[in-house]
Amino acid sequence: MREALAAPDGDVRVLFADQEAAARHADLVTAAHAAGAAVHIVAATALAPLTGTVTPQGLVAVCGARAAALAPVLAAGPRLLALLADVRDPGNAGTVIRTADAAGADAVVLTAGSVDPTNGKCVRASAGSLFHLPVVVDVPVEEAVAALRAAGLVVLAADGTATTDLPAAAADGLLDCPTAWLFGNEAWGLPAAVRELADHAVAVPIYGRAESLNLATAAAVCLYASAQAHAGARGEPPPR
Amino acid sequence: MREALAAPDGDVRVLFADQEAAARHADLVTAAHAAGAAVHIVAATALAPLTGTVTPQGLVAVCGARAAALAPVLAAGPRLLALLADVRDPGNAGTVIRTADAAGADAVVLTAGSVDPTNGKCVRASAGSLFHLPVVVDVPVEEAVAALRAAGLVVLAADGTATTDLPAAAADGLLDCPTAWLFGNEAWGLPAAVRELADHAVAVPIYGRAESLNLATAAAVCLYASAQAHAGARGEPPPR
Repeated sequence: MREALAAPDGDVRVLFADQEAAARHADLVTAAHAAGAAVHIVAATALAPLTGTVTPQGLVAVCGARAAALAPVLAAGPRLLALLADVRDPGNAGTVIRTADAAGADAVVLTAGSVDPTNGKCVRASAGSLFHLPVVVDVPVEEAVAALRAAGLVVLAADGTATTDLPAAAADGLLDCPTAWLFGNEAWGLPAAVRELADHAVAVPIYGRAESLNLATAAAVCLYASAQAHAGARGEPPPR
Repeated sequence: MREALAAPDGDVRVLFADQEAAARHADLVTAAHAAGAAVHIVAATALAPLTGTVTPQGLVAVCGARAAALAPVLAAGPRLLALLADVRDPGNAGTVIRTADAAGADAVVLTAGSVDPTNGKCVRASAGSLFHLPVVVDVPVEEAVAALRAAGLVVLAADGTATTDLPAAAADGLLDCPTAWLFGNEAWGLPAAVRELADHAVAVPIYGRAESLNLATAAAVCLYASAQAHAGARGEPPPR
């Protein structure tokens, strides 16, 4: 809510709040009203069917859909992007969006066939990050990879079976370039044909006995490795 | 299933399977029978109430609870542990167990007040890792930290507000020591009194605008930083 109201294109159109939440979050109600949203104070029982959660927070905002376009994202000279190919689980997608935001990524791109990031579970898992960085949807994967490469990004496929691993990629300076990480479906990963679109495939090493990492976890390790490589390449101290 | 049967203490006692799954996974049925489990082939409709999932896989195993004890874990000279304080969400706990396994951790310790790792959601999120490494439960946090420190582990609290961040900790060699990472509750993090039990507090840096990372994501970044520091300190190449 707060993130949607703060975002330049958050586009909050209607706000429903129960009495208790309206009192507790008076600043949000005022901000929504000031932003031109229609504000309705309703009974908590009327609010429940509008929410997908077991313990709703007493506020429901209706926002305009805000898909970003790929061209302006690429025109701005991005240094770090996450490209999700056929990611279906909204919780995973939302967590990757939150993690990409934390790692300083410039955008997240979801291919055609991926989950809609405005899915309620995805919005909640993103913890506001959906309103922090451009999220481009519905781009065919071949088209996305071609556009990213044309914009000067190295496309790295995250793939547990790759012969190059993440520490080796970092040591070789591969992560210092502007990078787009390509992540696959949570169940079946990246099909060979999609993996081969990338410039390189890189594995997160498995030091123990797990067969693999889950998607959001692997994405966190990869995106943070890039963020740290970029900060190091610029000679910058970390942000905190 | 496969992991439970392969684990020396997996302790599969009963296996229920529907006809279709029994045919598809004949090896598992045979292995369960050989391991002394009672095997029941039942109708798929009879199986459904035993599972917590929307799309059950046709196999349900009843396993003995297999909590590990802390003393033998510490006696074995662990180099990397994850200590979860008051972690309540079973999906988060299971994902951290899977990630700790992948990062080569020697064990996961859940404090008193944390979720039961035999919760079905936790078992599924762990993707078999619950059967790969010792998972110690129900240890009061003060007692756990004291025992870990007495065993020669440096206890690092993962805390977004810490003044030392992860790249700085790595650069200072802090991650080269045998380490226990202390992670807090998914909603409220580590209370000050618990954080102060640790030797140092370390923040995963936020390069973008996200307020924080989710627990499992932060744990992945921290545990992998330690795994890589340990591999580097031993002069070992990464595992793949």
